[in-house]
Amino acid sequence: MKVLGIIVEYNPFHNGHLYHIRSAKELVHPDYTVAVMSGSFTQRGEPAIIDKFSRAEIAVQHGVDLVLELPFVYATQDAGGFAFGSVGLLHRIGVVSDIVFGSESSDREFLVETARILHEQPWRYQEILHVKLKKGLSFPNARKEALLEYVSEAGILDPERVKNIERSNDILGVEYVRSILRYGSSIEFHTIKRIGADYNEKDFKGKLSSATAIRKLIRDERWDLVKEAVPMRSYEVIRREISQGRGPVFWKDLDLAYMSRFRLMKREDFSRIHGFVEGLDARFEREVKRSKSLKDFIERLKTKRFTFTRLRRMMLHAFFDLAKDFMGRVNEKGPQYARILAFNENGRKLLKVMKKRSKIPLISTPSLHKKILEDLKDGLEVDEELYLRMFELDTLATDVHALFFKEEDQRVGDRDFRERVRFIRRGFS
Amino acid sequence: MKVLGIIVEYNPFHNGHLYHIRSAKELVHPDYTVAVMSGSFTQRGEPAIIDKFSRAEIAVQHGVDLVLELPFVYATQDAGGFAFGSVGLLHRIGVVSDIVFGSESSDREFLVETARILHEQPWRYQEILHVKLKKGLSFPNARKEALLEYVSEAGILDPERVKNIERSNDILGVEYVRSILRYGSSIEFHTIKRIGADYNEKDFKGKLSSATAIRKLIRDERWDLVKEAVPMRSYEVIRREISQGRGPVFWKDLDLAYMSRFRLMKREDFSRIHGFVEGLDARFEREVKRSKSLKDFIERLKTKRFTFTRLRRMMLHAFFDLAKDFMGRVNEKGPQYARILAFNENGRKLLKVMKKRSKIPLISTPSLHKKILEDLKDGLEVDEELYLRMFELDTLATDVHALFFKEEDQRVGDRDFRERVRFIRRGFS
Repeated sequence: MKVLGIIVEYNPFHNGHLYHIRSAKELVHPDYTVAVMSGSFTQRGEPAIIDKFSRAEIAVQHGVDLVLELPFVYATQDAGGFAFGSVGLLHRIGVVSDIVFGSESSDREFLVETARILHEQPWRYQEILHVKLKKGLSFPNARKEALLEYVSEAGILDPERVKNIERSNDILGVEYVRSILRYGSSIEFHTIKRIGADYNEKDFKGKLSSATAIRKLIRDERWDLVKEAVPMRSYEVIRREISQGRGPVFWKDLDLAYMSRFRLMKREDFSRIHGFVEGLDARFEREVKRSKSLKDFIERLKTKRFTFTRLRRMMLHAFFDLAKDFMGRVNEKGPQYARILAFNENGRKLLKVMKKRSKIPLISTPSLHKKILEDLKDGLEVDEELYLRMFELDTLATDVHALFFKEEDQRVGDRDFRERVRFIRRGFS
Repeated sequence: MKVLGIIVEYNPFHNGHLYHIRSAKELVHPDYTVAVMSGSFTQRGEPAIIDKFSRAEIAVQHGVDLVLELPFVYATQDAGGFAFGSVGLLHRIGVVSDIVFGSESSDREFLVETARILHEQPWRYQEILHVKLKKGLSFPNARKEALLEYVSEAGILDPERVKNIERSNDILGVEYVRSILRYGSSIEFHTIKRIGADYNEKDFKGKLSSATAIRKLIRDERWDLVKEAVPMRSYEVIRREISQGRGPVFWKDLDLAYMSRFRLMKREDFSRIHGFVEGLDARFEREVKRSKSLKDFIERLKTKRFTFTRLRRMMLHAFFDLAKDFMGRVNEKGPQYARILAFNENGRKLLKVMKKRSKIPLISTPSLHKKILEDLKDGLEVDEELYLRMFELDTLATDVHALFFKEEDQRVGDRDFRERVRFIRRGFS
């Protein structure tokens, strides 16, 4: 049985995503396709433009058989944490045979060798890394330079190829492969070349515009252009959600909620939070008072090392109070459950197999998530505390996300307990 | 030397306030008049409509010589805490001879006898109170019934007069007198009958409209009516502040800041906060998810016992994380400093006397507040930790308040360290 796993955000689902699904299927010829998708907040540290339920619905309408939610604690982390969570989820549900991800270089040897070094941490590599860090380089830069030096010393790879790690998508690729190694997973991986606009390309590029560009079009209500950039069914669901007042949600909507909270946080409060290193706690405390808005605040914090994305993630983690020790456990233990967001008839069949093979509990009815823990079947090993807190954060993230819906009536919380899993009778792919 | 002390909010300063100042002066014939005024948030648990600096400025323009800020921790408490802080401040600055406050009944004997019972807590009164509480009455109601029963048993007062305690202003009056007893202060008190509209009267009543009604007029930009209800100088300053984008600030502006914060707080978090009694923690946790807005939330929480005002105060305290143990110390120790907001030439002279007589440090330059603690002169006894935290909260309250200014450029924080004490050369009274 071939089961294809993909890792996505679909914020929102566009033509490039459809191309990716089709290419991946051509490569693997799967019996089933399962997607792990970010929930209410994304890896950029931003709220998703429309809710996770509708994004999952769109995914199933375009060829995914089953959509699982990547827990908030992984979805909003850097490449390492994001990959550890998403690959972990695909691994632990026990059915995925192949993962396909986009890669700038599509240089398989480079991905594998680099991932292996990062996974195995050879003594000589660690030594070089240590020297680089002592020289005052940031961790990502020290790592890159150490990798470069190590591969040229050891004659493993052409150092030129290691430079590829700078490209964001290849960093993620390396981390996916590294996570496969870390879980000791037998999942095969494949890469496909990305087509169309760059991730961060902000401008409309016709049919193959980036998600960033499309979000901007949605903000500006350029529906004619949005229609060009996303498949028809995606367009319809986006319009439906927005016309009913469930979105669009933007990072800037968080302005006063973030600022009023952060103005009350002290250096010690920030320093407890995951990701706060080297004096950033004091900078947050100081600059939040000097800033007149969230935009002003992040611009004051921005440095070469602390990019906008990284800072947005840190702010999100500070707002949700994700402490260092908790995130340490998150990043040691991996996902503790598979939350089902949407599926079709084919997905239903896959779920039957998953029920037997999954190493983690499947959650399709959130109100039963505590009961699931009590009735845990043999062979499943769950860290109960982590399971409960991790799932709670998914629901809290959705509760906070909903507050920024345009229509007040839509802002009621506990959406995870009110929205049903979306079953889509017929998709098209 | 006669020094008149008054306790005010001036949110905003209106004709009734001017009448109050004039009547109080006629009664006492003071050499100096000092006002203790709420800062960025008021006793109703709301943000002040314009900032504390401008409200202090208006006060000095209308016959107050010196305006001191009532620390946030007292300004936003129920009658007991509010009185303990404001009377404590007037007592500790060492110069006030007389306090004048408004009273519905102006029944001096009632105020004194009731305050004395509450202060002395006679054994028989405690016994009756205990029985009432066991019967399931709320504390304020049990107290009222116990007082009634006690005074009729002991033949101290006509029980009919005790019923006056229900009127909000007399509750405050009793608490002022009780605080005078508690501090063992030699300050004399006087009452004046309130004139014009009731505190909570929401409608425009011409020249003597309530502050509530005037805030509503400001919200609706009914400047013609505002002009009728407040003295000209007050009107000018209110217009100036609002035209420069510093306000008006309303409780509803806090909607998303509050809701997003409270959705992340758990029962245990609420139960730590001052004022959270008997299952209210669980109700907050549950209802914040069921509500679509702050207004919806407070309406769901509202009961006969938990009034809107009380709930708004609790929300404010939850947002600022005012823990029970901390507030216990606040309400045991009293104000630790006198923060000067505005004064005139006469006030400057009074300050010279205060510098010799005050039992607490005077803060006129907030950036020096830590240094003041180091250079504490003999005879001043300050709880350093409480002093620092209490003052920090005043500045944080102002930093949060400023975020809700209409003009983004005005939202920069640290206003307490940027705004200078307002010296008003000539007022009019």
